[in-house]
Amino acid sequence: MELNKKEIELVKILHNNNGKFISGENISDTLGVSRTAVWKYIKNLRKKGYIIESVPRRGYHLVEVPDKITVTEVLAGLKTNLIGKEVRVFSSIDSTNNKARELAKGGASGGTIVIAEEQTGGKGRLGRKWYSPPYTGLWFSVIVRPHLPSNRAPFLTIITSLVVKKAINKLGIEVLIKWPNDILIRGKKVCGILSEIMATPDVINTAIIGIGINVNQDSFPSKIPLATSLKQVCGHNVNRIELLQDILMEFENYYNRLKDGCYRDLVTEWKNSMDILGKEVDIVAGNEIISGKVVSISRRGELVLIDPDGNKHLFWAGDVTLRQKD
Amino acid sequence: MELNKKEIELVKILHNNNGKFISGENISDTLGVSRTAVWKYIKNLRKKGYIIESVPRRGYHLVEVPDKITVTEVLAGLKTNLIGKEVRVFSSIDSTNNKARELAKGGASGGTIVIAEEQTGGKGRLGRKWYSPPYTGLWFSVIVRPHLPSNRAPFLTIITSLVVKKAINKLGIEVLIKWPNDILIRGKKVCGILSEIMATPDVINTAIIGIGINVNQDSFPSKIPLATSLKQVCGHNVNRIELLQDILMEFENYYNRLKDGCYRDLVTEWKNSMDILGKEVDIVAGNEIISGKVVSISRRGELVLIDPDGNKHLFWAGDVTLRQKD
Repeated sequence: MELNKKEIELVKILHNNNGKFISGENISDTLGVSRTAVWKYIKNLRKKGYIIESVPRRGYHLVEVPDKITVTEVLAGLKTNLIGKEVRVFSSIDSTNNKARELAKGGASGGTIVIAEEQTGGKGRLGRKWYSPPYTGLWFSVIVRPHLPSNRAPFLTIITSLVVKKAINKLGIEVLIKWPNDILIRGKKVCGILSEIMATPDVINTAIIGIGINVNQDSFPSKIPLATSLKQVCGHNVNRIELLQDILMEFENYYNRLKDGCYRDLVTEWKNSMDILGKEVDIVAGNEIISGKVVSISRRGELVLIDPDGNKHLFWAGDVTLRQKD
Repeated sequence: MELNKKEIELVKILHNNNGKFISGENISDTLGVSRTAVWKYIKNLRKKGYIIESVPRRGYHLVEVPDKITVTEVLAGLKTNLIGKEVRVFSSIDSTNNKARELAKGGASGGTIVIAEEQTGGKGRLGRKWYSPPYTGLWFSVIVRPHLPSNRAPFLTIITSLVVKKAINKLGIEVLIKWPNDILIRGKKVCGILSEIMATPDVINTAIIGIGINVNQDSFPSKIPLATSLKQVCGHNVNRIELLQDILMEFENYYNRLKDGCYRDLVTEWKNSMDILGKEVDIVAGNEIISGKVVSISRRGELVLIDPDGNKHLFWAGDVTLRQKD
């Protein structure tokens, strides 16, 4: 699915034309090649999965792009300054977080995105596996160099879950955030977030934010019954590139708000996207299981729980389950 | 200063004898070499800086080891299970934290110690330089794999400062901990601590704890007037290896207490080692300067400050200066 330089330029021209027809003459002028060459490029693009309509005397018109993630397609029309400054796409790697960490160590700049069509060792929290088959989901990581105070680390997960929620909402699908890092549709997981930081006590130097979204899976292995995909919910394929672009653009907005110190607003928005407040829960954190009532989300993004003895507990992370009514 | 295998064994035998005489015959039996060979090894060790007394009919006796840090000397008599499991000594590297980070990525096990006789790029918090000339200080880093909850990160600095305080106290020198990561003698800095973590929101996977102690410097460059050394305070050279061993042994104790979850005790001990409580201070944290009164250290090791408007602020890290009385 590699495009050559002229083909990439042609794709950009078609994209920039926003679905309207553009004449072959116009294209040949812009590309600086003959009409015959334009025709050859169009043919090649069609072979590679682009659906391009051609109508005599009107020209060409981009109908659909192939459902493969390419740097060209991700960058086409992406209106961000930082996020997506560099985009790396891999067909199959162990995990985008691992690759992103490696690139970050090698000096990759903040805003770099690492995308894989397939993850062979996709991970969730606590080293759990994340099922990430090829060409159906969005498996990607964002590298940022936030220089935020280290105790603001939970905010990286907070903004990411809000960003994904917003992008999915745009498809007309309602979601709930399951504290701290999952996104659910009717109780089933459609997205998981795994952030990793490198920090001193003062600042978070680098963060790798991994995002896995089930997009176009028709079904899931029976061992993960609590997973769902956007396609399963809305009944049709979802364009992964448009979804990714929406996420990157929202990410830039929320990341800027975070950098601007809008902690209170972000926590409020996060709180309102959950259904855990006031509920009786069990939380597994480290080796402990603590039961109690969720009374709040703290200003710093922690879950505040009161146990039956009235003791207050604060959590950054953990596994939360609603308690059965006795 | 490299020792060969037999010389290392001989040094261990002399160390194990705890300053008592051991006969040449005994040594030759244990090493499995001739009396003449033993004499040759003793001569070599003396050339390398070991002071070994020999008395006819009584044998040999270790008086003093060279003031060079070697793996053999660090491990001789070190009674720890985890900390110092592996010891790496470098004559001159940029910074022990950088080297430790590199080793940790390569899979170095928790408990590994990285020591340098000289750091050419020693660093303090926020990328500040740390003056670390050769053969006078203790510049080293400890790699741990703590699997502690991420919001316990401040405790790594807390235990390290308590450990260094205790080891220096054993020399009969009083110190104060300057929040969050310096150790002062009469207002001058004798030790700095720089910890770095790699973490997910759940757990700290790896921590690199860098410790720099001014031990035997006679003086400091005029541009760092607020530094002091143990030698400047007590008037004589301090054995760096013994000090290091004391620190490693205390570190293991405190690290175990931390792993056991003795957070409250550790914070209390830390609080009592500072003189900042109740004082009016300015704190520079990130781009902000906040002034107020230090009212407490939180259960989680944060500095709690009340500003003139009565707002509470919590800090993990920052630069604190006492306010001048108006």
